[in-house]
Amino acid sequence: MVIVPEGAIADLIDADASFEAVESVFAAMSRGDAYNFPVIREAIGHEDALYGFKGGFDKSGMALGLKAGGYWPNNLEKRGLINHQSTVFLFDPDTGKVKAMVGGNLLTALRTAASSSVSIKHLSRPDSKVLGMIGAGHQATFQLRTALKHRNFEKVIGWNYHPDMLPNIEKIATEAGLPFEAVDLPGMVEADVIISITSAFSASLMADHVSPGTHIAAMGTDTKGKQEVDAALVASATVFTDEVAQSISIGEAQHAIAAGTIKESDIAEVGAVINGTHKGRTSDDEITLFDGTGVGLQDLAVAAKVVDLAVEKGVAQRVDF
Amino acid sequence: MVIVPEGAIADLIDADASFEAVESVFAAMSRGDAYNFPVIREAIGHEDALYGFKGGFDKSGMALGLKAGGYWPNNLEKRGLINHQSTVFLFDPDTGKVKAMVGGNLLTALRTAASSSVSIKHLSRPDSKVLGMIGAGHQATFQLRTALKHRNFEKVIGWNYHPDMLPNIEKIATEAGLPFEAVDLPGMVEADVIISITSAFSASLMADHVSPGTHIAAMGTDTKGKQEVDAALVASATVFTDEVAQSISIGEAQHAIAAGTIKESDIAEVGAVINGTHKGRTSDDEITLFDGTGVGLQDLAVAAKVVDLAVEKGVAQRVDF
Repeated sequence: MVIVPEGAIADLIDADASFEAVESVFAAMSRGDAYNFPVIREAIGHEDALYGFKGGFDKSGMALGLKAGGYWPNNLEKRGLINHQSTVFLFDPDTGKVKAMVGGNLLTALRTAASSSVSIKHLSRPDSKVLGMIGAGHQATFQLRTALKHRNFEKVIGWNYHPDMLPNIEKIATEAGLPFEAVDLPGMVEADVIISITSAFSASLMADHVSPGTHIAAMGTDTKGKQEVDAALVASATVFTDEVAQSISIGEAQHAIAAGTIKESDIAEVGAVINGTHKGRTSDDEITLFDGTGVGLQDLAVAAKVVDLAVEKGVAQRVDF
Repeated sequence: MVIVPEGAIADLIDADASFEAVESVFAAMSRGDAYNFPVIREAIGHEDALYGFKGGFDKSGMALGLKAGGYWPNNLEKRGLINHQSTVFLFDPDTGKVKAMVGGNLLTALRTAASSSVSIKHLSRPDSKVLGMIGAGHQATFQLRTALKHRNFEKVIGWNYHPDMLPNIEKIATEAGLPFEAVDLPGMVEADVIISITSAFSASLMADHVSPGTHIAAMGTDTKGKQEVDAALVASATVFTDEVAQSISIGEAQHAIAAGTIKESDIAEVGAVINGTHKGRTSDDEITLFDGTGVGLQDLAVAAKVVDLAVEKGVAQRVDF
């Protein structure tokens, strides 16, 4: 079997390769060639940790396995370790034998960034010029860096609950040669694309903060109770997601579903747009919203890519098992 | 992290160490110090394989993780590999970082054998002399070998649907210096302890095959629809299990529960008997039945023991991860 430790990931896979892997597995999901298993997520009653498994099988990419790990909120303060800790395990679908173990921390950031960018490529107006960021934490920098590759953005605007964190994303804009402007939430009307990546439990983005024709990638809500976008705005948008079952239960759409203002059949998979079986955006005035909930197949896709790249570059660490 | 490949397991852990680990984690479960996560089990639509995860956390033993793998029915014929394939992954409960990867195939056999023997130690009559085996496959040899350590058995009797497999278990009896006799099912009345370890979908063992005072360890039923013991016999016995939730849904008790002849509250955890919070067997005439369904915590317990032993003996293979 092959082992790729966390420290080796950054030299092996970049935002582009991650994007391709995630776009491809979203398409496979919509063709019915790949599916996610039920998610296990447990508060284990130790270190306030959340731990669990996200598994799946992509028959077209022959990726079988899971990401295991979770959130240890005291890691940074107590031990100087990052709080999100995960590992991806790949199995041989022909035999059931373990095939690879891959560090999952950077991969999680890359696959989440890839996800919003897949939605931007397939759902935003091609002439989008202004990218609005809601959130300025570590993950926001990944989202922004990848998004900038998929439209010819001319400007980045940003809002964060803690404004002192905005330099995190300003830095990425500057590196890309783009002007950055801190705005208040109503200032988001200027944006053609908005990426929301916070861990909020109440809506920041309201209907009157968003102009017609905008594409919103709502990436922060992955748990019951979390919310970034007002339910009325979700109801007025054309809603896409990675996986409908997660969107309605733990994603941004949970609130509009609970309010009864949208129904499950109103939500389409972004994979269907990639495959051409859903028309996607139909006008320049339409507000599209991508509810990115995060699925195990994304983790398997980027991890499988890393293993291929490690083998290709001759740096795969092999262990008899 | 530590890696213990499948091939290294046999030299590290034996039936006794496995027994101790399983007895200890059953006790922890009943104290509320250890719990199993929901089981994921998926027919993946490739190679007719069943694949999934059994996870859990034992706070007293600080074992966190999962067993991943499943059943690949074509492995042996197509590839000369065993059909059951599994791997155990242990995580550090303090940090969420992966701690060990351990081959799970032999461990699964050992922990399943340990489970029936824990029930024999705590529920069978101390003067039990005749051990009855129903089933004579690979796993039956493990069950028998371990069981013989926990009572002073003087004879082994056995029945199998395919009688030509009986030499498998006769060999184990002979090695232990005990006479072996092939019997028909009614012949099981001679047994003081019966271990049933088949993958049948209808009952073999009926009420009139079992004498008063017998302990039955029903180990084969771990899926909806499987059955080894007639529901009327289950209803007439005092029923114990590893985990009540599994016993009533996928274990031997599922049929008596469905028939309404027993209820969930009639079933006790064997861990409660170990802890002394349940009285266990109360008379020499009582029929006790252990519904062994197999839980992830057993896998974590034996894998954690293997890692400790590997470190102790200086043979732990370490990988930077």
